[in-house]
Amino acid sequence: MTTALILFAHGARDPEWASPMRRVQAAIRRRRPDLPVELAFLEFMAPTLADCAQALIAGGATKIVVMPMFVARGGHLKRDVPELLASLQAAHPGVELTLGEVAGEQEIVVQAMAEASLQTLGL
Amino acid sequence: MTTALILFAHGARDPEWASPMRRVQAAIRRRRPDLPVELAFLEFMAPTLADCAQALIAGGATKIVVMPMFVARGGHLKRDVPELLASLQAAHPGVELTLGEVAGEQEIVVQAMAEASLQTLGL
Repeated sequence: MTTALILFAHGARDPEWASPMRRVQAAIRRRRPDLPVELAFLEFMAPTLADCAQALIAGGATKIVVMPMFVARGGHLKRDVPELLASLQAAHPGVELTLGEVAGEQEIVVQAMAEASLQTLGL
Repeated sequence: MTTALILFAHGARDPEWASPMRRVQAAIRRRRPDLPVELAFLEFMAPTLADCAQALIAGGATKIVVMPMFVARGGHLKRDVPELLASLQAAHPGVELTLGEVAGEQEIVVQAMAEASLQTLGL
């Protein structure tokens, strides 16, 4: 089984917006140089989730984990993204597609946001 | 000088959306029970940044740090929020108002998002 990771973010018109996602991608590549890890976007930026997943599958991925780089779980994550995943899954029944928990809901990220706030205050 | 912290998020129609921000607030309160820390929102949820800041100032805060709970720095953070801060500062010249760096741009948060992704993969 060849596993790949997609960091899936909202996207914005400003190209600089994706900078934190590129830094997360670079941090993962430093720790796991063997793991394919790509960015994909819901709106405004390329590639889409479907294009990104198809490229990874064409490259041999048989398991893809999609990590939502969102601060919280709103309508996009409750409705649009599960629908996107379901249609991708239907198109690629031989691939294991998994949607991870939203970044901002993960305990390690919650604690990091608390720590970053206290650091900013100088506390 | 009495310092207070505002965790400032976008907001959404779904009340559950604010859950990660409430968890960050709770984590900060556990570590710094003496530090006033409140949530405020740009849209959809109450209180606004202005209402939140005014309540903290009425309660004696003389320094307020606003931490943007956003995954990246887009139009809201580049334009709308600095304008909001500037008009608040003009209304309260005796209070020191500071805008922190977006949560998602802070190195500790970048590393936590990378770690959370690898944990999700079981790596």
